[in-house]
Amino acid sequence: MDESHQNTQTLIKDEGKPRIVIVGGGFGGLELVKGLRKLDVQVILFDRYNHHTFQPLLYQVATSGLETGSIVYPFRKSFNRQKNFYFRLGEVNHIDADNNLVETSIGRIRYDHLVIATGATTNYYGMKDIEKHSVPLKEISDSILLRNKIIKNFENALLTSNDEMRNSYMDYVIVGGGPTGVEVAGALAELKKHVFPKDYRELNLMEMDIHLVEAGPRLLGAMSEKSGVKAQQFLEKMGVKVHLNAMVKSYDGYRVNFTQDDQPHELISKTLLWAAGVKGAPIDGIKPESMVRGDRLKVNKFNQVEGYENIYAVGDIAAMVDEDTPRGHPMMAPPAMQQGRLLAKNFKNKFQNKPLKPFKYFDKGSMATIGRNKAVVEMPSGQKTQGFIAWMIWMFVHLMYLVGFRNRIVVFINWFMSYFSYDKSNRLIIGRTGVEDFIEKDEPLETTNSE
Amino acid sequence: MDESHQNTQTLIKDEGKPRIVIVGGGFGGLELVKGLRKLDVQVILFDRYNHHTFQPLLYQVATSGLETGSIVYPFRKSFNRQKNFYFRLGEVNHIDADNNLVETSIGRIRYDHLVIATGATTNYYGMKDIEKHSVPLKEISDSILLRNKIIKNFENALLTSNDEMRNSYMDYVIVGGGPTGVEVAGALAELKKHVFPKDYRELNLMEMDIHLVEAGPRLLGAMSEKSGVKAQQFLEKMGVKVHLNAMVKSYDGYRVNFTQDDQPHELISKTLLWAAGVKGAPIDGIKPESMVRGDRLKVNKFNQVEGYENIYAVGDIAAMVDEDTPRGHPMMAPPAMQQGRLLAKNFKNKFQNKPLKPFKYFDKGSMATIGRNKAVVEMPSGQKTQGFIAWMIWMFVHLMYLVGFRNRIVVFINWFMSYFSYDKSNRLIIGRTGVEDFIEKDEPLETTNSE
Repeated sequence: MDESHQNTQTLIKDEGKPRIVIVGGGFGGLELVKGLRKLDVQVILFDRYNHHTFQPLLYQVATSGLETGSIVYPFRKSFNRQKNFYFRLGEVNHIDADNNLVETSIGRIRYDHLVIATGATTNYYGMKDIEKHSVPLKEISDSILLRNKIIKNFENALLTSNDEMRNSYMDYVIVGGGPTGVEVAGALAELKKHVFPKDYRELNLMEMDIHLVEAGPRLLGAMSEKSGVKAQQFLEKMGVKVHLNAMVKSYDGYRVNFTQDDQPHELISKTLLWAAGVKGAPIDGIKPESMVRGDRLKVNKFNQVEGYENIYAVGDIAAMVDEDTPRGHPMMAPPAMQQGRLLAKNFKNKFQNKPLKPFKYFDKGSMATIGRNKAVVEMPSGQKTQGFIAWMIWMFVHLMYLVGFRNRIVVFINWFMSYFSYDKSNRLIIGRTGVEDFIEKDEPLETTNSE
Repeated sequence: MDESHQNTQTLIKDEGKPRIVIVGGGFGGLELVKGLRKLDVQVILFDRYNHHTFQPLLYQVATSGLETGSIVYPFRKSFNRQKNFYFRLGEVNHIDADNNLVETSIGRIRYDHLVIATGATTNYYGMKDIEKHSVPLKEISDSILLRNKIIKNFENALLTSNDEMRNSYMDYVIVGGGPTGVEVAGALAELKKHVFPKDYRELNLMEMDIHLVEAGPRLLGAMSEKSGVKAQQFLEKMGVKVHLNAMVKSYDGYRVNFTQDDQPHELISKTLLWAAGVKGAPIDGIKPESMVRGDRLKVNKFNQVEGYENIYAVGDIAAMVDEDTPRGHPMMAPPAMQQGRLLAKNFKNKFQNKPLKPFKYFDKGSMATIGRNKAVVEMPSGQKTQGFIAWMIWMFVHLMYLVGFRNRIVVFINWFMSYFSYDKSNRLIIGRTGVEDFIEKDEPLETTNSE
């Protein structure tokens, strides 16, 4: 107790005000911080990065369409005029709810109210080989690694005279037909058509295959059948090979095994993007009975975690389970933002002894983009649109939700210029070690290959 | 011989044309490639990165002014319409001049003509402790590491209640009063004045000291005394502590020892930027008698390396030593570009059996920027200007020399918006491991510090 008090003092000054500790600065955490700006409290945000990441555009960083810096925004810049805001760069490892303490990578800290907004992480469903060899796309570092890997693959493909090996570098297997899988497949198809043939004249780009493997009967399972079918048509027209009802069984970094209609199939690729599922990213210390399927935290209409008085959860990590939403709300930005905003209001209500307002989800519709002039959009009204108009809507909405005026301008310029040049500018390998980083440790380049 | 032939085949297809291998895609290498575009030869560029780096703006990436992607440009994009151009991502480790072969990290390759354009590297003058603990600023990865370090320092400063330790995180020692040192010192002073007080309200920014340590009697030794004195006035007005005639003796990652007027002095800082010298970055295998002081290669008026018929050097690595330039040309962009361009022309002359043209350096003047509205410029005519006009010239020239139309627009927008907002947007720690990368291995954060 004495020791923890010392740590608390070192980590952050106690102001004698109610202290709200928020873990995670995603869409939910950010809206919550913003909503608390006028309250006489101490708002403390912990995050593993010093910046918010606009996850919906991670795939564009991974496929060289945007610079890293354009889709992230420093927390301290967002809130440098908010007097009650404190940021600490660190990871929260454990919750000691009995003593109202969290243990972090930089020390222990006391809270009066704790909000878990840690979002979601990639779900490998226990398949260790896939976790080891595949690449995920949930964080900014994932997108940089995937971009580096794609470009390295093509540089490697130039160096081998073995056909199968060359194909393994040029072929891509994307698992998961949700928005991420569809968007990456579309972006790779555009690189194949417009960019790589100019960059790699020595290669035959007809050899590049893009496989999209989905376990369900159609793409974009969270949207209508019409949108899923249209997305598939768009992709197939762009040369993507779509495999439906296909379950990936194993991947050793080279061979992908999947079953389709009970028949075994095999693909060969050095790159498997795993976008087939997410799960909550809970923090150690929460009672197992407060968790539901998919490692999410069960919350009530006020985002309180079941079994706790002063612990809350918002966004992907929170499962508000009731009659309307037996599996919680969809794990995407709008519910997270709406929950963060309402929780801020309810803190205010609480401190003013006013009744709390229960959460009601306002469906904003959903959308996915496939490529230039190609997107599918479903309005909350049920109206659906595809193609150019949908694509314009998609771009407009994403620009509006991006944090930071400069980011919006820079992303707009990138998109504007890419549209007319058919180019993606950021095909860069920016490693701290140059060549050493370029050569994969487990796979020496074939410099002594004879023909 | 047989084996090397196999490697050669695997690395690149032999077209039976004269093969010019260029090592390094800096200013000199890039101009050379461009100049060779119409020749019936095979042009092969090797580089450790897949992109050109605009080194004069590295300091702006390091001080959060610009995004990484804005000052680099992919080689394949630069030359995707140049039919005789081939790029290979790899490091050239050894030259076997007797057999016209180079050994690279991805295999061996034959050349008819070899051009060394490897530029310069940081010179620690044999001081191992400084090499180990200081940070350089010569490559894009250096600038990212320095940016990360600066921001981490401030995040760390928040966590300690020990005054000396906190100061060690907040204080900066920059060694070397050339353009890089002056520019970084100025940029840090702007962060201290305009950005960090808002970002780190919990810290007293008066505690932040920026020291610029120069061994010579004035700053910007390569420019006139007037410019050096003016730069010093600008910096001191911005709060930078300039130490002249000061020789740094040792640095252990915490204590900097230097002598000034034979008196020993000590500064304490976790961050020492070493910008006190460069030397050539030659490739193993070149005869020692072909090298001069500072590890540069002695070349004749045609950029041929002394003692070799078909090996050339351009740019920082080349020392064209004669009466006018007893120590070679200045190690900066204009001589490199001019040498690259002339060497391309001379290859053409050579293949057409025309006489070669000797190199004549056209001095374009020199400049350095200190901060907003503050720069010093010296025209080739000898005319000097300082302040706002100089700063506008500096910006215009740097925008014009940046490779890529998109980069120019994005950099311009960044500068334009920074000018009015007094802000630097890119204060990001983008590490692949988040927190783990954030905590320095050799220096655990003081989480149990009691006060």
